[in-house]
Amino acid sequence: MIDHNKNTLLIKRIGIDTYRVPVIYIHEDCHICKSEGFEALSRIAVTIGDKTIIATLNIVRDSLIQDGELGLSDAAWNLLSAKEHTPAYLSHPAQLQSLSYIRSKIYDHALTEDKFSSIINDIVAGRYEDIYLSAFITACANGRLNLDEVVALTKSMINAGSQLKWDQDVVVDKHCVGGLPGNRTTLIVVPIIAAFGLTIPKTSSRAITSPAGTADTMETLAPVTLSTEHMQRVVNTEGGCIVWGGAVRLSPADDILIAVERKLDIDSEGQLIASVLSKKAAAGSSHVLIDLPVGPTVKIRSINVAKQLADTLVMVGNEIGLNVRTMITDGEQPVGRGIGPALEARDVLAVLQNKQDAPADLRERSIVFAGEVMELSGKVKIGDGYHAAKTILDDGRAWDKFQAICEAQGGMRTPTTAEYHHEITAERDGIIGSIDNRRLSLVAKLAGAPMATAAGVDLHVRQGSTIEKGQPLYMIHAEAPGELEYALDYVASQKDIILINH
Amino acid sequence: MIDHNKNTLLIKRIGIDTYRVPVIYIHEDCHICKSEGFEALSRIAVTIGDKTIIATLNIVRDSLIQDGELGLSDAAWNLLSAKEHTPAYLSHPAQLQSLSYIRSKIYDHALTEDKFSSIINDIVAGRYEDIYLSAFITACANGRLNLDEVVALTKSMINAGSQLKWDQDVVVDKHCVGGLPGNRTTLIVVPIIAAFGLTIPKTSSRAITSPAGTADTMETLAPVTLSTEHMQRVVNTEGGCIVWGGAVRLSPADDILIAVERKLDIDSEGQLIASVLSKKAAAGSSHVLIDLPVGPTVKIRSINVAKQLADTLVMVGNEIGLNVRTMITDGEQPVGRGIGPALEARDVLAVLQNKQDAPADLRERSIVFAGEVMELSGKVKIGDGYHAAKTILDDGRAWDKFQAICEAQGGMRTPTTAEYHHEITAERDGIIGSIDNRRLSLVAKLAGAPMATAAGVDLHVRQGSTIEKGQPLYMIHAEAPGELEYALDYVASQKDIILINH
Repeated sequence: MIDHNKNTLLIKRIGIDTYRVPVIYIHEDCHICKSEGFEALSRIAVTIGDKTIIATLNIVRDSLIQDGELGLSDAAWNLLSAKEHTPAYLSHPAQLQSLSYIRSKIYDHALTEDKFSSIINDIVAGRYEDIYLSAFITACANGRLNLDEVVALTKSMINAGSQLKWDQDVVVDKHCVGGLPGNRTTLIVVPIIAAFGLTIPKTSSRAITSPAGTADTMETLAPVTLSTEHMQRVVNTEGGCIVWGGAVRLSPADDILIAVERKLDIDSEGQLIASVLSKKAAAGSSHVLIDLPVGPTVKIRSINVAKQLADTLVMVGNEIGLNVRTMITDGEQPVGRGIGPALEARDVLAVLQNKQDAPADLRERSIVFAGEVMELSGKVKIGDGYHAAKTILDDGRAWDKFQAICEAQGGMRTPTTAEYHHEITAERDGIIGSIDNRRLSLVAKLAGAPMATAAGVDLHVRQGSTIEKGQPLYMIHAEAPGELEYALDYVASQKDIILINH
Repeated sequence: MIDHNKNTLLIKRIGIDTYRVPVIYIHEDCHICKSEGFEALSRIAVTIGDKTIIATLNIVRDSLIQDGELGLSDAAWNLLSAKEHTPAYLSHPAQLQSLSYIRSKIYDHALTEDKFSSIINDIVAGRYEDIYLSAFITACANGRLNLDEVVALTKSMINAGSQLKWDQDVVVDKHCVGGLPGNRTTLIVVPIIAAFGLTIPKTSSRAITSPAGTADTMETLAPVTLSTEHMQRVVNTEGGCIVWGGAVRLSPADDILIAVERKLDIDSEGQLIASVLSKKAAAGSSHVLIDLPVGPTVKIRSINVAKQLADTLVMVGNEIGLNVRTMITDGEQPVGRGIGPALEARDVLAVLQNKQDAPADLRERSIVFAGEVMELSGKVKIGDGYHAAKTILDDGRAWDKFQAICEAQGGMRTPTTAEYHHEITAERDGIIGSIDNRRLSLVAKLAGAPMATAAGVDLHVRQGSTIEKGQPLYMIHAEAPGELEYALDYVASQKDIILINH
């Protein structure tokens, strides 16, 4: 009975980037808006062939769009992947069944795996607007997910994306529950483990709110945006890889949920566990070491919280067939010296190349983690892991393996250096007290990291160092004078990012 | 230290309607995005003179915006209210303190009035994006607000907007906790009460998801978008008014919160109470009658829920100095015959003019409510209200007063009628069983209501009516053939919107 032609407009890419939110633009005179009652911010189903997306409507008055045209933002364009001037059919989106499950959760009812799957699948298909994402996250926060629900959520997140399979029975991985600047042990642990002969298909994230993600740091040394096939080739040849997880669509709901959680600045334990373990399981891992740094200015602020999180990670891992080991580590101050992609890469290279001035803490943590992973795998006796890992690093096999991985990922690169610098010095004599990870990260971000890969902060001191007035605390690196200025302006407005005690 | 000129662009209105969300458009080559790290969907503070708004960024590639220009959506333009080409300064918005209170609420801590005020003030200033609004609503749902918090939330909502003051000690009002189509008693109660000599400054809402709000229906008979001064003149002259609340900014957070609640389709009791009572208190009322219709297809679906809501409304009213009386009424079927602005106005006029064919239920409910309001005011003895109200309606004083109010609001109008009609008839003989308020409302909306004011549904039957196959059930009215077709298409897809029992 409905005449489809009546509700059809010709698509046009209009060059507006609305990030992950698909937006469509219709002229205010368009008859469809009138007959369908579409208004600005209405959610509208846009169908081309057998592909339907749900997008947010903006109404356009001027010549950006003609009556009869349907303007698409980049996100809408990419989701539909059709040619210019293809006819698209507009309609009211079907009511999303999964929203009733979110309401159920708001009213404190436990959800089954089927219901979580329905929610997660709608999220991955881009059918949720922010209001729904935020309600889901809020309704699951503060321990409102029981253990069964965390398991169900984790499984539904795994199933919503690609899942990698490997021939080996034992496939290892490591993960850090973030927030600690400079903690780039992954780039050292992976080559040690791979050189040892284990399989470690590592996928990492880019920075969302931090000055560098592991993928950003690795990208200064080699390509990280690999197809799933390319990634599999690298791992099959070299035993390991360090790639950007976003390109291989493992647990794709996670990136969407994390973006909203960051805005709310809440770390729901259930969501955190599902996030970490779903990515590891989807990557085909069997044994995972999880680093939980604790400190006043990282994500986990107390040992008790870390212990509880550790217990639940192990329990949920067990339910989904993942052998999880946790390590609670010191998150009081940054690891290594550099904060920012290229500066962190420099530290990593110094450790891999066994340079004399390599940061001792980064080296030490990496050996400990690699040793733990070896022991967890069952391929090394308990107690022998540290020594085995240290030997592989010391004798250059880790460095050889790292170069081979970089070559296999597309070719090794030399990180760039920044043109603009400014040194921040001590305002008095004393002993270095606390170092604020969060504010130091913000300085690095204001200086341009991670987009300006050479930008960031180079830390010259550690807790307990003795310092004299006028001696350097840290150097700010920037690729543009404006960014340097912006970072300096922030530093000038702050007290005691690095506290000096008498 | 920051060079303001560096972060300045010239504003340009670009004719994109993004409803209530302020959006700004910047060219991808703009230096500010690079130096500040602004990305698509970043929230950005835009300052002109002493006015700062927070807007969402879209990045533009093509010629819609030149480098150096700042495109503004209608909402952003209206909030800034500046001239074309005025320089605007862009910066990172200050962290919103109130977000920490939302987090507090997510973690089930009770909030004080100060904290609610901080949240509500940020909402009214447009500083929240949907993610925050949704988290706030979700965190307050399912009884997570205790009585003290509902009182605190109500007070903070009152204080966030204008507050009307009247010379009279007794100022009355009535309100219906919606969802019942055709329930336009307000347009009859107000003139009865005003003719009686009481003060009733009635502000009403427009439809959000329904086919007509009281303000929409009244607008077919007289202007409703009045300034606060104009509204006060009408009330001081005539004793009453029926205006659109949105224009007088009473409890302005409410409209924003309601829009999100509707999308989530949750009715948080605490939010509902704060919403209703804050508007009444801000309007300067002292005594309020609240109608709580109960039925399977209206907002309140059980007597127990209605009773609990009634108790809390009275208690919270008491705490904020408002004398509240509640009435639980029958919400099984629509009131009157028309559903849609002009059709409902026709029913109202028939009652006011004492026409023989006036809908008896609309007349009866209006007299009961008016009588209750009179008794609540203390100006009429308990038991005498009904008779007093009926007399004023019967002898034509209510009709005279209604015309006087319309004239004072800007002049009485005649509602338009629709050009296109289609009658839906009974498919078999029987007795009318249930009538689905929700689906019948949707038919009226698909036919064009409330934007097409003459569109809607005209109901010919009531529960218990005997009907023969082929006799009319209801008539669909539309202003455009496409809308009529759309409504008919929906009707064809549905079973038993009006159930006929054997």
